Amino acid sequence: MANVTIVGAAGYTGQETLDRVLAHPSLELYAVGSDSLAGRDATALDPRLNRNGGRRVPRFITNEAALSVDADITFVCLSHEEAAALEPRTGGVVVDLSGAHRLRDADLYATWYGFHHPHPESLAGWVYGLPELVEVHGRLIANPGCYATATLLALGPLRDHVEPTSVVVDAKSGMTGAGRTPRASTHAGFVLENLSPYKVGSHQHVPEIAQFLGFPITFTPHLLPVRRGLLATCYVQSTGADLRAVLEEHYAGSAVVTVLPDGVAPELGRVQGTDAAEIGVFQDRFTDRTIVICALDNLGKGAAGQAVQNVNRLFGFPDTAGLRLPGVLV
Amino acid sequence: MANVTIVGAAGYTGQETLDRVLAHPSLELYAVGSDSLAGRDATALDPRLNRNGGRRVPRFITNEAALSVDADITFVCLSHEEAAALEPRTGGVVVDLSGAHRLRDADLYATWYGFHHPHPESLAGWVYGLPELVEVHGRLIANPGCYATATLLALGPLRDHVEPTSVVVDAKSGMTGAGRTPRASTHAGFVLENLSPYKVGSHQHVPEIAQFLGFPITFTPHLLPVRRGLLATCYVQSTGADLRAVLEEHYAGSAVVTVLPDGVAPELGRVQGTDAAEIGVFQDRFTDRTIVICALDNLGKGAAGQAVQNVNRLFGFPDTAGLRLPGVLV
Amino acid sequence: MANVTIVGAAGYTGQETLDRVLAHPSLELYAVGSDSLAGRDATALDPRLNRNGGRRVPRFITNEAALSVDADITFVCLSHEEAAALEPRTGGVVVDLSGAHRLRDADLYATWYGFHHPHPESLAGWVYGLPELVEVHGRLIANPGCYATATLLALGPLRDHVEPTSVVVDAKSGMTGAGRTPRASTHAGFVLENLSPYKVGSHQHVPEIAQFLGFPITFTPHLLPVRRGLLATCYVQSTGADLRAVLEEHYAGSAVVTVLPDGVAPELGRVQGTDAAEIGVFQDRFTDRTIVICALDNLGKGAAGQAVQNVNRLFGFPDTAGLRLPGVLV
Amino acid sequence: MANVTIVGAAGYTGQETLDRVLAHPSLELYAVGSDSLAGRDATALDPRLNRNGGRRVPRFITNEAALSVDADITFVCLSHEEAAALEPRTGGVVVDLSGAHRLRDADLYATWYGFHHPHPESLAGWVYGLPELVEVHGRLIANPGCYATATLLALGPLRDHVEPTSVVVDAKSGMTGAGRTPRASTHAGFVLENLSPYKVGSHQHVPEIAQFLGFPITFTPHLLPVRRGLLATCYVQSTGADLRAVLEEHYAGSAVVTVLPDGVAPELGRVQGTDAAEIGVFQDRFTDRTIVICALDNLGKGAAGQAVQNVNRLFGFPDTAGLRLPGVLV
Repeated sequence: MANVTIVGAAGYTGQETLDRVLAHPSLELYAVGSDSLAGRDATALDPRLNRNGGRRVPRFITNEAALSVDADITFVCLSHEEAAALEPRTGGVVVDLSGAHRLRDADLYATWYGFHHPHPESLAGWVYGLPELVEVHGRLIANPGCYATATLLALGPLRDHVEPTSVVVDAKSGMTGAGRTPRASTHAGFVLENLSPYKVGSHQHVPEIAQFLGFPITFTPHLLPVRRGLLATCYVQSTGADLRAVLEEHYAGSAVVTVLPDGVAPELGRVQGTDAAEIGVFQDRFTDRTIVICALDNLGKGAAGQAVQNVNRLFGFPDTAGLRLPGVLV
Repeated sequence: MANVTIVGAAGYTGQETLDRVLAHPSLELYAVGSDSLAGRDATALDPRLNRNGGRRVPRFITNEAALSVDADITFVCLSHEEAAALEPRTGGVVVDLSGAHRLRDADLYATWYGFHHPHPESLAGWVYGLPELVEVHGRLIANPGCYATATLLALGPLRDHVEPTSVVVDAKSGMTGAGRTPRASTHAGFVLENLSPYKVGSHQHVPEIAQFLGFPITFTPHLLPVRRGLLATCYVQSTGADLRAVLEEHYAGSAVVTVLPDGVAPELGRVQGTDAAEIGVFQDRFTDRTIVICALDNLGKGAAGQAVQNVNRLFGFPDTAGLRLPGVLV
Repeated sequence: MANVTIVGAAGYTGQETLDRVLAHPSLELYAVGSDSLAGRDATALDPRLNRNGGRRVPRFITNEAALSVDADITFVCLSHEEAAALEPRTGGVVVDLSGAHRLRDADLYATWYGFHHPHPESLAGWVYGLPELVEVHGRLIANPGCYATATLLALGPLRDHVEPTSVVVDAKSGMTGAGRTPRASTHAGFVLENLSPYKVGSHQHVPEIAQFLGFPITFTPHLLPVRRGLLATCYVQSTGADLRAVLEEHYAGSAVVTVLPDGVAPELGRVQGTDAAEIGVFQDRFTDRTIVICALDNLGKGAAGQAVQNVNRLFGFPDTAGLRLPGVLV
Repeated sequence: MANVTIVGAAGYTGQETLDRVLAHPSLELYAVGSDSLAGRDATALDPRLNRNGGRRVPRFITNEAALSVDADITFVCLSHEEAAALEPRTGGVVVDLSGAHRLRDADLYATWYGFHHPHPESLAGWVYGLPELVEVHGRLIANPGCYATATLLALGPLRDHVEPTSVVVDAKSGMTGAGRTPRASTHAGFVLENLSPYKVGSHQHVPEIAQFLGFPITFTPHLLPVRRGLLATCYVQSTGADLRAVLEEHYAGSAVVTVLPDGVAPELGRVQGTDAAEIGVFQDRFTDRTIVICALDNLGKGAAGQAVQNVNRLFGFPDTAGLRLPGVLV
């Protein structure tokens, strides 16, 4: 059993990480940090916690205190800027679910995240934790962004098989992707019956995607009137390879990512509430483009599920331990 | 390990039952029946089934064939009228998720379900499977309706403590409660941004509720623009007892039903995708009524979760085996 | 032509009032106040304003400045507490869309609105502007609350024909009813796929309803995952009268309120975006209760539409001038 | 006053056309056809029709009978195949809201609509009714598809200023775009909390778009969990022109189409329930693509609103007569 601290446990990603840790056969919850809930019981987060047996959640402590705990694993669920300020003090594993350690070029933070990175020299020490595409190792894991995960699951294995200038990604995300802080743009009176593009051609996940692919892409995100789930529709031109075959081979052994049969399109409805991802591949009938679509849950494979999966890899646990991978949810 | 057949596995309740059986440590799937999918592979129901290890789902057979299989447990997920026509041939346990065996008075079927019951004499042999309120036993289980489950979880323990003529129940259900068959009333163009009362004062779950309580109630269901979940707001007048205390005592040991702390209201969002139920109790400030609110997932505790829980009781498995009871889902 | 000032024009009710004033054949927009938009062009509220001909919207001024304008009609769309502080200085008509002048008993404000009313003596001078039930007159109009409007349209004409202690009202509102200020409870990540009861048995519209009916009622509001619309399901026991007949006679001449034929239930979908209301009447088949259901748009008949209708009555304009009353919107 | 017949008046487009005709100052409703409602009163379509004054709707007749009426204008709201079979018998104007007369090459119907066109020789006589891009004339109008309208409003004026092979269109539509017939794919239990791509790379509106632009495009539609509204995100590479300037000039005089200011993105929420369209123009910061986004209501500018606008052009009525063009709807 490895023990776990969650810092920033009251946000969406912290709460979902907590849920997976509680369900994980080899992880033990040690401390939960939240500045807004410090000193309060677990029922302050959810009234059902600690009521009916099962593993108990300790009282919330401050994030500062939680970071001082000498845990085997620390999940950091803070804002980008707060996470960037951290100096990991313990010898344990740190999984940062923010964007603070995903980019190697520290100068990009000022442009895309709005702050100067306080520890530019440390960035080289973090591993980009996308286990289907990267050999996860070491003790510092930068957990990928939700849009980047969906885009790279679709395009990562095709990196050397598509025309770099051909790539267009049109993405759509559920509202939990916007974080829990209330804003005008997250008000249900704005969101319901609406679809709104935002940061058109200028989203901060593009440098993250470009860093992995080796070339820039065109990317437009849209906010959907759904609670959870993210779908990326990717348009590419092949340099000759059979793109479906490349993807099917790449994910042949995966219990997390499924390449759907010919003619079947991914849907949010099948991946919501799970840590799975689906990929569909289509040949356009009018042009020479291939359309690769990836669906996942922004809080699952796009955040907390991937964070736990990274830990599973580092500790040699089964890849799907603690993950939610049901088969036939309606 | 007990082996299981699911009849009508391609509908909402069948599919959710299948999902729980696959996750259950002591149940083994033996046969799945569906007239619409007979002869086809499991991927016809969900493209991810049988793709990535785990327990495999056999090819679909007809419902007739599935009923002939000599399984230890048969979950019947057919229409009310189809289920009523069954003559259980095997010695195994039968859990009927339809309404066909819930009412003891066969004459009520003509009025409330629109058909004459073909086996009126058999109705006395079925046990109403609401495990928090009934000692489940025998081999024939009539799984309660979703509205009836929510109403009776809230009011069953209060049966002798409220004025019978005072009871009003205003219920709201997600759209999977309407079944999978497409109708004008289930078209998303009708449902989205809508709220529609239906069968006002004349829903077929009222006789089922009245049979248990011993007196009739006023009941109005409404269709919500949500996929899953059901909430029943119940208005009662106490005959003197502290209704909150009665409920807290009744559910003190339950891992499925939680009585929320004073001032906390149940919400669909916390029970969706789970087999749990939440109950809130409020004293009206203007009149002498108490308001008892119960939330659950119509496909979970309102259908498939309760069906599996009934089996757990009959076979002595842990009460929550195979159920979905996460703690802090967003 | 009467000229109009709107104070608090950037909130939901202000914006909807503005829309109706622009469409009204006998009203001319004179000034629009908004502290958040003061000094900015109308396109700051909506990018399409002032772009394509039609009546032009002036630059926003502060609410203080807007209140000083000597307009024929002032629509006040401020918070309850801000509106209570007003001392109407002009000789023009003032329509207050907040709750600040609806209650005659000033003491109730401390309990139900959380502030001591600064002008208790003035409350008797305001007329409760529910034109289907009250003879609107004078120059100070307290526009009713959205829940109160739906409840009183259903129950007002029945006031002398129902058992006072029998009345239970279960209400459901769209999210624009919660105002535009972002809160945890209005975050789409909380609202979507959710239904949440709130202020159970203790909503501030109950004293407003009780003041009109002459007796208290039991009332529970719920927040729906819809943008607009409100439905009140009212349970009553008749003292003998044919309640449908009473309602049909009362609304026989109304172009705004329709009593639906027997067996037809009101729906949000038919009234959204309109200033109309629908009423359905049902006799319960199990008990002696009658169920009266009213649907309206919380921003239409529940706020801005009613405000304009009140002005129409005061000025002798046609009752439906400027209102949105389409026939067959999908 | 011109008199009007609507054929297929009980579907979504028929109903919305009826609503606009009733609000139009120069159109008079003469006959309404519907095979499902023939012989019934207007309240069969909507219980509020003919109840409260205003213009009255006649009893429904069969579509066959409606087509025989000698009306000045006939709106045809039938299925593609039914509309293709028509032989316009009268001398009046016919506006076909289906796809049956949009394509000049009759051979395309077998591939994209699934039937052999019965009147291939007649196709040249129909004018493609997109009034912002085509000089509408004659008496036979093929009303454009909703996806085609949004795409062509965005790209039509840019036809000679973009690289033909660069064009990718990613479109998202509300559920009324799928027509009123209930299907598995329109069931709210499938649609809610879902986003589903469909006909990926093979939608029948592509030939319609290509016919106008002169070159094929890549196009993927997605079904949204919203009732109404459609948004097309178009990716193009300019051949040198300032694409924003071209669009602003083209729509400078339009009361229907608005090019939004720099940095403002179109949203469904602002165009729903209206006959307006919004266009946003963005330069990608990472690649040399321009992103042009168009939002409209699929039943408004995407169907019934455009049909009425075409009639306004043919008869010399004001362009916006009978249209819904509010300014500041929430």
